[in-house]
Amino acid sequence: MNITWTRKDLLEIYDLTAAEIELILDTAEEFKKVCQRNVKKVPALRGKTVVNFFVEPSTRTRISFELAEQRLSADIINMAGSSSSLTKGETLLDTIKNIEALQADIIVMRHSAPGAHEFIARHTKCGVVNAGDGAHGHPTQGLLDIFTIREKFGSLKGLNVSIIGDILHSRVARSNMWGLLKLGANVTFAGPATLCPREFEEVGVRVCHNLREALVGADVVNLLRIQHERQHCGFFPSTTEYNQFFGLNNDSLKWLKPHALVMHPGPINRDVELSSDIADGERSVILEQVSNGMAVRMAVLFLTAGVL
Amino acid sequence: MNITWTRKDLLEIYDLTAAEIELILDTAEEFKKVCQRNVKKVPALRGKTVVNFFVEPSTRTRISFELAEQRLSADIINMAGSSSSLTKGETLLDTIKNIEALQADIIVMRHSAPGAHEFIARHTKCGVVNAGDGAHGHPTQGLLDIFTIREKFGSLKGLNVSIIGDILHSRVARSNMWGLLKLGANVTFAGPATLCPREFEEVGVRVCHNLREALVGADVVNLLRIQHERQHCGFFPSTTEYNQFFGLNNDSLKWLKPHALVMHPGPINRDVELSSDIADGERSVILEQVSNGMAVRMAVLFLTAGVL
Amino acid sequence: MNITWTRKDLLEIYDLTAAEIELILDTAEEFKKVCQRNVKKVPALRGKTVVNFFVEPSTRTRISFELAEQRLSADIINMAGSSSSLTKGETLLDTIKNIEALQADIIVMRHSAPGAHEFIARHTKCGVVNAGDGAHGHPTQGLLDIFTIREKFGSLKGLNVSIIGDILHSRVARSNMWGLLKLGANVTFAGPATLCPREFEEVGVRVCHNLREALVGADVVNLLRIQHERQHCGFFPSTTEYNQFFGLNNDSLKWLKPHALVMHPGPINRDVELSSDIADGERSVILEQVSNGMAVRMAVLFLTAGVL
Repeated sequence: MNITWTRKDLLEIYDLTAAEIELILDTAEEFKKVCQRNVKKVPALRGKTVVNFFVEPSTRTRISFELAEQRLSADIINMAGSSSSLTKGETLLDTIKNIEALQADIIVMRHSAPGAHEFIARHTKCGVVNAGDGAHGHPTQGLLDIFTIREKFGSLKGLNVSIIGDILHSRVARSNMWGLLKLGANVTFAGPATLCPREFEEVGVRVCHNLREALVGADVVNLLRIQHERQHCGFFPSTTEYNQFFGLNNDSLKWLKPHALVMHPGPINRDVELSSDIADGERSVILEQVSNGMAVRMAVLFLTAGVL
Repeated sequence: MNITWTRKDLLEIYDLTAAEIELILDTAEEFKKVCQRNVKKVPALRGKTVVNFFVEPSTRTRISFELAEQRLSADIINMAGSSSSLTKGETLLDTIKNIEALQADIIVMRHSAPGAHEFIARHTKCGVVNAGDGAHGHPTQGLLDIFTIREKFGSLKGLNVSIIGDILHSRVARSNMWGLLKLGANVTFAGPATLCPREFEEVGVRVCHNLREALVGADVVNLLRIQHERQHCGFFPSTTEYNQFFGLNNDSLKWLKPHALVMHPGPINRDVELSSDIADGERSVILEQVSNGMAVRMAVLFLTAGVL
Repeated sequence: MNITWTRKDLLEIYDLTAAEIELILDTAEEFKKVCQRNVKKVPALRGKTVVNFFVEPSTRTRISFELAEQRLSADIINMAGSSSSLTKGETLLDTIKNIEALQADIIVMRHSAPGAHEFIARHTKCGVVNAGDGAHGHPTQGLLDIFTIREKFGSLKGLNVSIIGDILHSRVARSNMWGLLKLGANVTFAGPATLCPREFEEVGVRVCHNLREALVGADVVNLLRIQHERQHCGFFPSTTEYNQFFGLNNDSLKWLKPHALVMHPGPINRDVELSSDIADGERSVILEQVSNGMAVRMAVLFLTAGVL
């Protein structure tokens, strides 16, 4: 492949070409090797400043980005929305302009409003990396999932990937979907009818409301985290009942292909989305997803920094 | 100029000679160039430890200092008052002695009590940099404002600088005043009578309670942030009324000299202290103030570290 | 001495041989010199990642570790329990496995459950350093106290060390006890009967409930911090009464040997555990303990990192 990265921002997987996605994954492969060395550090972003601006809190994603930045030798500022000038009535754009005035190079932002990243990216010279926006997108999560699948199977083409759970509210499902489709995988969404709308069929996803149907013939199953608070909104009666119909256990595991991967974006609810022994079992790549996440984030930061 | 810096502390602009202020500004000019380079980092404070001790929270000032310290390659500890041993009944001096025992070199402190910095500085070998104390002083804010003016006009001598708003509670106004007067500028304070006391006339400031009087002939207008909580204390009836009498808009802008600068310490309240188009207009140097703040803080840290 | 460090974890002083303790102290001596240099930094842990995971908050200990890590040039992540996935129902082991998947090298953990560190250490490849666990142990505090004593007296052998206060709830007392006994010191515990149980006599500690008895002939007195909340539990009537019976003042100071050291783990309650002039007096090594703590923590991190 012979393609140059030209984007200062990573906003949505939807925006990327298949070649761009592959370039991120190839770059991440190199950084994964860096993270396995004795000295897990390269000077690629030395003297660059990255601001982690998390208007919506997220410890896991922030720590993964922060370590990625440290291993690239960047200077790092962590800014929580709760302590930013947003709480003093400053507009989001003014906050961003202030960050830019501090000569930041890249802003890694989590913000609940879909579209906030795109708006910001248009108005700042800084690179903008989307670290999650409401239920809309979470591109680095999608990329790390795809990286993990590609690493095991060599290619995404023709693979059957089933994503199970609360599709409706999941930025992980959306970001995965766009990336998987672009790279030639077949995508199935399954979950309770209240949480898994038929609309996704229009973009080429198979939608079903039955676990067996989703799992038979699948090469990969990605189990979304159940947000307990949804239970109280009437989307499903109880986590016990959710587990009974959509939880992965040793019986339903048999429906998958023999070498199928079990994935989960974490943190897992043991014996809700999947039984405890499957989480720790040989098909589970859940912890590899965490390792790969850092490599993918290093790649994204490295590529976007390269065009600034 | 041929002057050597001899202070381990930066407590108040009031303490500094004109030559010392100019030395800080000259040094900041060099560091501003560093911040515009591709690699925004120098090893000046490598192996030195700076503790940011913010007993009173302030995200903007803390981040500006923290980035300044990173770009000087210092080791950095952030300590909030709320999580310090002060909450366990430790005296401020004992907390500082503990920080000193950790072989810290410089303590950047924000504390609401005027005099706290001076007291601490006398009792520790560490350098002490005042990052704001109650309504008393905020020397690096004053210095960055003066830096910004000097950068545009070459010299402060004979310039008319008007500072508008809540003078009574403003550490920004006080720190600006001393620095501006020392460098030969003419200073005017204007604001509602409840917030702009006549006492400042004694040190050579012109005080008025009318925006037009303050703006006519001014080279610089510095608009202080309105703290909404003051409204409830009866200092002024409403922000709308404040805006009507003291907000800068396209009409009142005409009273200024043609090349006058519009400044604000941020975060701005759009259409309260100034109209939105002026904030974003060509006279506004509000975001340059943010950039210059970092350069000035690098200079202060560099100079004080040099005498430790 | 010619001994090699072979442990990936530092869990309890109880586990260590006298030779291992001496190796830590010898190594700390070297790092103490580093902390007194102009450039307080060595590249020993460059490219290594240390995660400070404080499930129970502790600013003093965390900052001491964080500075130790910075001066060893490690990459550092601070994780509070309150913001970790533990609050989302993740198990402690899953959280640790996630940290491990981020290729962390060492986890510095404070956790209130005794045994948590030992359990975690068995299940992760990462080095685990105990930064305090409930009332059970706080090995680096014990080590820094012993370092401070050894530095002054050359050897622990035959020294009389008296530890005064709330022995019952003190991890400091327990960790000190094991280390002191292993190195040949005589240990006395003293405090109100409700807070100083006789059970410790079984392991060779002298227990008494009278300050004079504890101090006469002592080479070292270590005054534990009074937790004011204990007062409300009926362990002692008031801090005033505690001070009267167990506080060190100029009268009780005379019972000690002429060159005896006065120690306290901090933060001190002036005029409760000891009078203010003794805290600041020539026998007090309280602030040296703080300095030595950093050197000891650098040594522990350096040694454990060496076997990973």
